[in-house]
Amino acid sequence: MNIGFIGLGVMGRPMAEHLIDAGHTLHLNRVKETSQHLVDKGGKAAASARAVAHASDIVILMLPDTPDVEAVLFGEDGVASGLSQGKLVIDMSSISPVATKTFAKRIEALGCDYLDAPVSGGEVGAKAASLTIMVGGKEQVFERAKPLFEKMGKNITHVGGSGDGQTAKVANQIIVGLTIEAVAEALLFARKAGADPAKVRAALMGGFAASRILEVHGERMVKETFEPGFRIRLHRKDMTLAVDAARALDLSLPNTAATQQLMNAAIANGDGERDHSALIRTLELLAGGPR
Amino acid sequence: MNIGFIGLGVMGRPMAEHLIDAGHTLHLNRVKETSQHLVDKGGKAAASARAVAHASDIVILMLPDTPDVEAVLFGEDGVASGLSQGKLVIDMSSISPVATKTFAKRIEALGCDYLDAPVSGGEVGAKAASLTIMVGGKEQVFERAKPLFEKMGKNITHVGGSGDGQTAKVANQIIVGLTIEAVAEALLFARKAGADPAKVRAALMGGFAASRILEVHGERMVKETFEPGFRIRLHRKDMTLAVDAARALDLSLPNTAATQQLMNAAIANGDGERDHSALIRTLELLAGGPR
Repeated sequence: MNIGFIGLGVMGRPMAEHLIDAGHTLHLNRVKETSQHLVDKGGKAAASARAVAHASDIVILMLPDTPDVEAVLFGEDGVASGLSQGKLVIDMSSISPVATKTFAKRIEALGCDYLDAPVSGGEVGAKAASLTIMVGGKEQVFERAKPLFEKMGKNITHVGGSGDGQTAKVANQIIVGLTIEAVAEALLFARKAGADPAKVRAALMGGFAASRILEVHGERMVKETFEPGFRIRLHRKDMTLAVDAARALDLSLPNTAATQQLMNAAIANGDGERDHSALIRTLELLAGGPR
Repeated sequence: MNIGFIGLGVMGRPMAEHLIDAGHTLHLNRVKETSQHLVDKGGKAAASARAVAHASDIVILMLPDTPDVEAVLFGEDGVASGLSQGKLVIDMSSISPVATKTFAKRIEALGCDYLDAPVSGGEVGAKAASLTIMVGGKEQVFERAKPLFEKMGKNITHVGGSGDGQTAKVANQIIVGLTIEAVAEALLFARKAGADPAKVRAALMGGFAASRILEVHGERMVKETFEPGFRIRLHRKDMTLAVDAARALDLSLPNTAATQQLMNAAIANGDGERDHSALIRTLELLAGGPR
C-alpha cells in the first residue's frame, strides 16, 4: 500500500521503518540525513505534504504538537490540499483532544476519513514495535487501519469517537506524571525522615502503592539515574495539553496543575532533558537542596 | 506465650484472634460486646493497660492515632507502669514517625524493647492474615517478633530503625492517596472530554499508568461503587501525619498537602465514611456537580 509518513523524528523513524519492512511503499516529507536510511530502504522522498497526500492512500502524522499538525494538514501545500475522496489521515502525534475534533471534521468534510491514534511507550516501544496505541474515530475506519497499527504496536485500543484517542493519551500522561510526583514525595519523605528509600520502596511493592511507576521510576529515584526515558520537557507539553483542555471544559484538576508547575521549575533548574523521574530533584530543591 | 493486645477495633479483633488460634494466651484490655468472642476463645480480660503489660511478655498496640498510643503507653495505669526488663512493646497502629522515635526511647530506657510495625491491607487483610507489615526497630528484636507477625501478615519487611516502619506506612499512604487522586483527575477528565472512562481505563492498563489503584479504585470510580474499602476519614488522618511530619522536617510536599485539602472537602460534603476512591466526587463538585 502507498502510505505517507510525515514526521521523521525519534519516534517517527522507527515507526516508518516497520511499515517499510512490512512491504509498504512509504512517501516521506522533509527527508534529512537522520532519515536517509528510509529512502535507502525504498522510501520515496516527496517535495511537500501535499505531494505525500497525493501519492498515498493513508497518510500518517507523527509531529511534536498541535500547531505542527495544523500547519501540516491545513497550511500551504499541506496534506488537505493533496487529499481526494476515500483517503485516510491518521494522526499519531500527541496533541489537543479539542483541536483534534475540529481537524477530524475538516478532513471528513473532504470525503476522507480521520483517526487520532497517539501512542505511549517512547523510543524503546517505537523501535520494538510494542507501542500502546489509543485510537479515536469510527469503528470501520479503525478496522481499516488496524493492520498498520499492528506493525507498530501491541496494546491497541479503539477508545471511541474522534478525539477520544487523544483524550486517553492525556489521561495517561496525567496519571503517569502525578504518580511519578507521588512516588517522589513519598521517597523524599522517607529519606528526610531518616529511613532508607530503597527499603521503603521494597516494603511498598506488594501493597496498594504498587505501580509500574514505583517499580521503574521509583528505582531511578533511588539510584539517581535520570537518563531518559521520557524527558520532563516533553511531559510538560502533555501536562499543558491537560491544563488547556481542562480550562476549555471548566474542569478543575488541582494536582495536574501543581505538577505542571513543578515541571516548569524542573526545566528552570536545568532538568528539562532528564527523565521525568528527576522530578524528585525539584522537590529536593524545595527542601533546601540535594541531600 | 503471654501476649497483651490493646486496641480491639475492626483491625485489632481479627489480628488478636489469629494469635489466639496460634495457641497464645492473650491478655486484653477494655473487652466489650464486640470483642467478647475473644474471651470466649480463651483470652483473659485485664483491668488496665498496666495489668496487661504485667501479665505479658510482649504487648501489642493497635490504636487509632498518636495521642491514643501515648495515653495507653504513658498515661495513668499505662503499659509503661506495668513493664519489667526484657519485655517487648510492638505498636502496630499507624501513628507519627516523629513521636514514635520518642516513644521507643522511653520504653527502651525501661530496659525493654520496642518495635513500630504499622500495617496496610485493611479489614480484609486483617481477617485473611495477609497484612503488609512495615517494621522499624533493632534487627534482633524484629527476629523475636517475626513469628507473631507471620500469624497476622504475609508481606513483612524490616525497614530500618525505630520510626522507620511508621515512615514507610506514611510513604505508602502518600502514594496511595495521590495515585487515587491522579486516577480520579484522569477519569473525570476523560468523561468531561466526552470519552468513556471505562474504555480509557482499559486502554491505560497495559502501559506506564498501570497500578493496583487504577485496577481496583479506578474500577470503583467507573462503577461508582464507593462502599469501603478504606474510609476517606481514615486516609485524611494518614495525610495529616504526612503533612505534620513534613512540617517538622521543613519538607515541602505540595500534592500531599493539596490532596489532604481535597479530603477535607470530601468530608465536608458528607463523603468521610465512603471509600477513598470517592475522592472523584469531590472533583465532580469542583467541576459543577455530579455529571
